[in-house]
Amino acid sequence: MSENRSEEKETGRLEAFSDGVFAIAITLLILQIPVPDLTKNAPDLLTQLGNQWATYLAYLVSFMVILVMWVNHHIIFRLIHRTDQLFLILNGLLLMVITFVNYPMAVLARSLQESKVPEDRLMFDQHTAALLYNGTFIVIAIIYNVLWRYASRNRRLLSKSADPLLVETINKQYRFGPLFYAAAFLLAILSVWGSLVLNLLFAVYFAFTGRAKSPNEKLVEH
Amino acid sequence: MSENRSEEKETGRLEAFSDGVFAIAITLLILQIPVPDLTKNAPDLLTQLGNQWATYLAYLVSFMVILVMWVNHHIIFRLIHRTDQLFLILNGLLLMVITFVNYPMAVLARSLQESKVPEDRLMFDQHTAALLYNGTFIVIAIIYNVLWRYASRNRRLLSKSADPLLVETINKQYRFGPLFYAAAFLLAILSVWGSLVLNLLFAVYFAFTGRAKSPNEKLVEH
Amino acid sequence: MSENRSEEKETGRLEAFSDGVFAIAITLLILQIPVPDLTKNAPDLLTQLGNQWATYLAYLVSFMVILVMWVNHHIIFRLIHRTDQLFLILNGLLLMVITFVNYPMAVLARSLQESKVPEDRLMFDQHTAALLYNGTFIVIAIIYNVLWRYASRNRRLLSKSADPLLVETINKQYRFGPLFYAAAFLLAILSVWGSLVLNLLFAVYFAFTGRAKSPNEKLVEH
Amino acid sequence: MSENRSEEKETGRLEAFSDGVFAIAITLLILQIPVPDLTKNAPDLLTQLGNQWATYLAYLVSFMVILVMWVNHHIIFRLIHRTDQLFLILNGLLLMVITFVNYPMAVLARSLQESKVPEDRLMFDQHTAALLYNGTFIVIAIIYNVLWRYASRNRRLLSKSADPLLVETINKQYRFGPLFYAAAFLLAILSVWGSLVLNLLFAVYFAFTGRAKSPNEKLVEH
Repeated sequence: MSENRSEEKETGRLEAFSDGVFAIAITLLILQIPVPDLTKNAPDLLTQLGNQWATYLAYLVSFMVILVMWVNHHIIFRLIHRTDQLFLILNGLLLMVITFVNYPMAVLARSLQESKVPEDRLMFDQHTAALLYNGTFIVIAIIYNVLWRYASRNRRLLSKSADPLLVETINKQYRFGPLFYAAAFLLAILSVWGSLVLNLLFAVYFAFTGRAKSPNEKLVEH
Repeated sequence: MSENRSEEKETGRLEAFSDGVFAIAITLLILQIPVPDLTKNAPDLLTQLGNQWATYLAYLVSFMVILVMWVNHHIIFRLIHRTDQLFLILNGLLLMVITFVNYPMAVLARSLQESKVPEDRLMFDQHTAALLYNGTFIVIAIIYNVLWRYASRNRRLLSKSADPLLVETINKQYRFGPLFYAAAFLLAILSVWGSLVLNLLFAVYFAFTGRAKSPNEKLVEH
Repeated sequence: MSENRSEEKETGRLEAFSDGVFAIAITLLILQIPVPDLTKNAPDLLTQLGNQWATYLAYLVSFMVILVMWVNHHIIFRLIHRTDQLFLILNGLLLMVITFVNYPMAVLARSLQESKVPEDRLMFDQHTAALLYNGTFIVIAIIYNVLWRYASRNRRLLSKSADPLLVETINKQYRFGPLFYAAAFLLAILSVWGSLVLNLLFAVYFAFTGRAKSPNEKLVEH
Repeated sequence: MSENRSEEKETGRLEAFSDGVFAIAITLLILQIPVPDLTKNAPDLLTQLGNQWATYLAYLVSFMVILVMWVNHHIIFRLIHRTDQLFLILNGLLLMVITFVNYPMAVLARSLQESKVPEDRLMFDQHTAALLYNGTFIVIAIIYNVLWRYASRNRRLLSKSADPLLVETINKQYRFGPLFYAAAFLLAILSVWGSLVLNLLFAVYFAFTGRAKSPNEKLVEH
């Protein structure tokens, strides 16, 4: 009894800390949208805002991706009741890469608004930025897989009451996560906007289906 | 019993995450006030601070609006005890637009302090900025309506003990929210300062009346 | 019973939100220290770091002041168990001014490192910045007084078990808070460094004595 | 009983506030990586990203160090159940220096990417930055020692159930912390990259061994 309570408390503080990092990382994204230059030689504000549509799209995608990641974190921590040293480190790495999303977002936003650069150099930079951006998502998906497999293998860190079918369902879903992001990565070679739109579709798809349900959840919960 | 506890826990973590985003979004606003330029050719600091009064007003308005939004969130989450997938997404969109307030605040602040630009261009930019700023508030009010109607329709996600009269009162209040902000939006076409002052009046009004009270709250709570 | 629990929950979320804003406001201070310019024509890094000592002092003072304010908030919320609409607004104003400290901190830091400006203009700007900085602390101390007097008058929002002697002790302490900061404000007219040092002494003094103790606390707690 | 509950609540709010500051400080690090300049005369983005590898390493080190510090905080607060005035201040100083890590990280990152400066001046600035960076870690380790010794001496603030052998183990580990960081500090005089790599090795080492285990923990917990 005493053991259980101390375990729950520890996971609780880890969840609270993780939630804090997620909340800050997702909120800092807004600082990555460049504020238009309103000095004399720049175009008027309305024109500049109109030219920034791709940056707004990147903001939307980044926000949705981190939000979906938070929901995932939420779901698997309902099953995980214990922690150990390696799990703390893996979770720390995950938080680091989630936070890191702000950097490729900033790089991508800057590349999308640059205009006084020769066209081919601009294209090269924008594709570089989009690959960095999508590559970050692949790394996140891989770390999620490692984290979850470490926690769930032989039910190492799972709660005794964690539903085995639900665990299996998450296993299956996670297997495909990196492949999704790899597809968007490859598309970024061809089209920056295309890969942003694909990422948005993924985020919406994950948002609506990502909440793993055990086939017998109704039996379990009602 | 077990079902109720697990539901409450889930809403709890959603509230804590939302509170975190609200707290960060409201605190980042201070970074959007431009720090005066103290180099040789700029006016002295006192003059510059005096010229920034409209920016301080915009900061005050932004802070009050997000604060009122947080109080609203607080109120409706006292009635909401369950979540589902679509509700998580709607709440995520709400948080995104709350966070986004920092961007139009930064754009407005910059447009208000620019001075080396021809007068008509400056006016155009300031009105553009004020419309973006007020437009963001309209979007927030609309998403709040959608979120609340989704949760309260047929008491979908409400607690069993949620007072029907209180639910009805909130329904009525929310119906007018977007209209208030639309009025400030229209006023921004005529006067940037006027729309800021109107927004401040709204925030003060909502702050003092926004806490929905059921007509029979006294009976319920005492 | 049901009434008490719902009251506690509400204060709990208000405290958590306030803690979040305090934590963010105190952490953002670090962003206000200007990063040295390492380009060709600037002095070397070591020289620049040495010249920034007053900025580090301002950082230390700002951090200590917000920390002391957080401890105060902590103390009075142990006595306050209920909220009402006006109290939410006063607490919101308090959080706004706590957050605002970042702005005068940034202005002061910039004025302290400027060097290519004529000496008398520089002096004028530095004193202006120090007065803005100290003026903010006076406003914080006044809002704390209003907040506490509103909550404690006729024990309006206090817990039934709040010790009357402790309430009286806090009343006395708060009465002098604005005077302390007014002294530092006046000193800033004469000496910028002097007022920073005085603020630091106040923060250390408050830190060691600020935790109000009821004369009969020993009887109450042991 | 009443005494115990009020004590735990107080430590709880202190932990939550500390967690908030840790979470924000660790997340702000990402803002310290300079976003590449994509204007006409700069090298292309891929080249610039490649040249920034040392900055990414510094980001990784900073993140890992703060994460390890958070885990340490977590561990000792499981043993600490009471607070007093001096402990609050020591904890506040600790949080201040944790937050401060962002500043030397920003200075180091800027010194690492500068290139239009004469070689010997560049070397001098980079070593200065690395010493500031490592010096901050020494200060953190010293404050941790002071904080822990204050709390654990004569079990001043420890829980009655805190395992004496675990307390002793932490005592031993903390004694060496400052020496580790002093070694990295000295190495920074010779090699900036070398000291970064050594810091990373320390962080990984602490991450895997830092979770103090009492020799009889198995007996205690199972």
